[in-house]
Amino acid sequence: MDDAIIDFLRQLIAFKSVSSDKNQANESRKTAEFIQVKLEEIGFHSKIVSNEEKDKNPLVFGKFGDDRNKKTILFYSHYDVQPAEIEDGWDTDPFVLTSKGDEYVYGRGTDDDKGPITATIFALSELLQENNDFPVNVRILYEGEEESSSGGFEETVLKNKDFFGQVDGIMILDTSWFTDGQPSLDYGFRGITYLAVEIEGPSSDQHSGMVGGVIREPLIDLIYLMSRFVDLNGKVLIDRFYDKVNPITNDEKELYKNLEFSLQEFKDTVGVSRLLNENATESLMNMWRNPCLSIHGIEGAFSASGAKTVVPGKVIGKVSMRLVPNQDPEEITDLFIQFTEKEFEKLDSPNKLSISPLGSGDWWFGDVNNFLFTAGKAALEEYWKISPSFARSGGSIPIIPFMEKTFNAPAIGVGIGQPSDGAHGQNERIRIKNLVGGKEVIKLTLKNISADV
Amino acid sequence: MDDAIIDFLRQLIAFKSVSSDKNQANESRKTAEFIQVKLEEIGFHSKIVSNEEKDKNPLVFGKFGDDRNKKTILFYSHYDVQPAEIEDGWDTDPFVLTSKGDEYVYGRGTDDDKGPITATIFALSELLQENNDFPVNVRILYEGEEESSSGGFEETVLKNKDFFGQVDGIMILDTSWFTDGQPSLDYGFRGITYLAVEIEGPSSDQHSGMVGGVIREPLIDLIYLMSRFVDLNGKVLIDRFYDKVNPITNDEKELYKNLEFSLQEFKDTVGVSRLLNENATESLMNMWRNPCLSIHGIEGAFSASGAKTVVPGKVIGKVSMRLVPNQDPEEITDLFIQFTEKEFEKLDSPNKLSISPLGSGDWWFGDVNNFLFTAGKAALEEYWKISPSFARSGGSIPIIPFMEKTFNAPAIGVGIGQPSDGAHGQNERIRIKNLVGGKEVIKLTLKNISADV
Repeated sequence: MDDAIIDFLRQLIAFKSVSSDKNQANESRKTAEFIQVKLEEIGFHSKIVSNEEKDKNPLVFGKFGDDRNKKTILFYSHYDVQPAEIEDGWDTDPFVLTSKGDEYVYGRGTDDDKGPITATIFALSELLQENNDFPVNVRILYEGEEESSSGGFEETVLKNKDFFGQVDGIMILDTSWFTDGQPSLDYGFRGITYLAVEIEGPSSDQHSGMVGGVIREPLIDLIYLMSRFVDLNGKVLIDRFYDKVNPITNDEKELYKNLEFSLQEFKDTVGVSRLLNENATESLMNMWRNPCLSIHGIEGAFSASGAKTVVPGKVIGKVSMRLVPNQDPEEITDLFIQFTEKEFEKLDSPNKLSISPLGSGDWWFGDVNNFLFTAGKAALEEYWKISPSFARSGGSIPIIPFMEKTFNAPAIGVGIGQPSDGAHGQNERIRIKNLVGGKEVIKLTLKNISADV
Repeated sequence: MDDAIIDFLRQLIAFKSVSSDKNQANESRKTAEFIQVKLEEIGFHSKIVSNEEKDKNPLVFGKFGDDRNKKTILFYSHYDVQPAEIEDGWDTDPFVLTSKGDEYVYGRGTDDDKGPITATIFALSELLQENNDFPVNVRILYEGEEESSSGGFEETVLKNKDFFGQVDGIMILDTSWFTDGQPSLDYGFRGITYLAVEIEGPSSDQHSGMVGGVIREPLIDLIYLMSRFVDLNGKVLIDRFYDKVNPITNDEKELYKNLEFSLQEFKDTVGVSRLLNENATESLMNMWRNPCLSIHGIEGAFSASGAKTVVPGKVIGKVSMRLVPNQDPEEITDLFIQFTEKEFEKLDSPNKLSISPLGSGDWWFGDVNNFLFTAGKAALEEYWKISPSFARSGGSIPIIPFMEKTFNAPAIGVGIGQPSDGAHGQNERIRIKNLVGGKEVIKLTLKNISADV
């Protein structure tokens, strides 16, 4: 049986479904078709659904069962992958599933998300073979644009929503274990709002010999402005930024107790000597449940190596804020604009300020007490004999709150691979034990849901 | 006679001596050879001198006369030009000298410096034809790398210094009139020191979802640091920065009185609505005789258009200071490093700071009371019937103080073209009147020097 699951993963990995490379659109379509055929083969009704956004990869829908006495579980993953070339530093061809004699198999997408898709399909197939009394109704919703901001996902799902009918729970298979040794169920992501802060002065770039000391340089205005967004302890200085942040509850505090988190390991991985907060739990809270502001860079200024005596005429600062319950991305965007305009006025500059929102997305905060977490936790404990962590992420996956709203059902993140798998890096891998274990845990979870564990 | 001067300029313009384009090295060599042949033709001894720096364009040396009873005048210009393509927005082929029926001729280098070279060579040729008692000894020093930071100039001149013998005055033909209506003699440039301020945190770029709010972002440290270099009035905040700046004398103040400078015209050209100082003379002083600090950009941060949620691991701020008498570039570099290190310490950051000087150059401050200015002023007044301005520039030409030191002789900047010629822009041009007038003024100046006017 292990041979079959590895063989399926091998075929899936061979497709170069790199969504950021439009020349590979055909590879993505073939991946979708391959999955669709497999779903039909195991007994599902499945179809390819064109993306509502032009030139975006299609989605794969699938369904099995329509028993009103059973819960309906929707599985989400993505079949597209990050770019990968052997020249990037891979030891082997990223699109050839490779064993190196250790307990892993290597290849682009093994962890993110072709491994989880494989585990899901084999779990469903085995359940269908085991007995006729399938524990739940299942819906499949796979996309091919996740690594490119899920372009067209929302429109396409909304247009084709009827396919799914009533949904009771959403299982997101696009996360990983909390540590290599501890499985996890994910209950949250931060939201985000991203803004461009433009300051325009001279009508074109100037020579610093001619205007230096004579004009107000737009870049100096921007640096003054950006120095006022956040203090050196990471506290965001935008007025009323923290007003709607939910205070931590005792229940939430409890969730941090069972986490195998090594501060030193984190620092070593990132490559820094000291964090804003050197307490492990506080640092995790800073990552997961506290909002923040980051400055990413400046467009329009001199950015190459070497020296250039330019005074840029127009510069655009790139700033984003990660948001948490119950901050509203639109409200925070407005507060940021108000604050920045007010601070800019204080600078009394002849230059012009304009601020453009570049996009935002909701946070997600799941309920760890619902049936999905209860069933998932019991499954993980039974299979791995380890108490799983309930974890969050500091990143943003706005399609999760979108799906929760669209299907009016709660979601859960179920990690299959390990954090050391290198999801977006070179030599991406998955432990064969995790692939097989993931499959078994999905089966157990669905059985637990059916038995109302 | 006008036909001959225009014809010579036409041939000179036709060479694509773009020093920044190494594929045009052969065009530069042909330009040097063309000038060398012409100098021999009019009666000079002339030679091509290989650049001491590898792959840099050669220099052209020339000499006439060795009479110990006459002064020896060294002419400096450059035969290389800025890049130009018709696609950049030229109305006509930039390397074909073109008349449009107005009083100008158009082409790359007409103003900077092929026009001035033409005027010089024709002035010398006519003086040689006029009589046998040539007024001065002349030395020619033309380079082909000025538009590329004069690479190899200093080494090559030092190595071949003997060619020139004793020099009494240096005429720089690489500036322009102060305004389109007022000729000028230039007596100063600012110096410069350019530094890279690097802050290194994480060992690689990070995802802002994972580290935002958790680590001290190097870019935020850099923004804090750079916000402390200069205040919003343009005052440089580096400790002891102004200590050695010469106070203004009454004589120097006088030099600002005869300047036809329109503040509104300057603002319109640069495209700004308000200057740091709205007084015309104070603004000119800010440009010419006061030091300043400019921030040019950041290397290593996100600089493209759009949104990217990166926390850059290493960022490098690019900063330069324009310097004036008697600031010492090396001393200011040290003061900047000390100040920046002290301010960085206050930030109490886990990130690492390192500062690298990227190059510096001396200011030049000429003596407007010496024989060069006296002779030049009388020549300009006689020919143009206009009192010329004595002007400076906010830019930096470190080879001028280098030549003054090397030849132990004072320098003067003699402008031929007008500021509206668009020296580095599209449709560069020179007024035919200025080309011919420049030739006549050079002749008159040399005669005045001889007569000790």
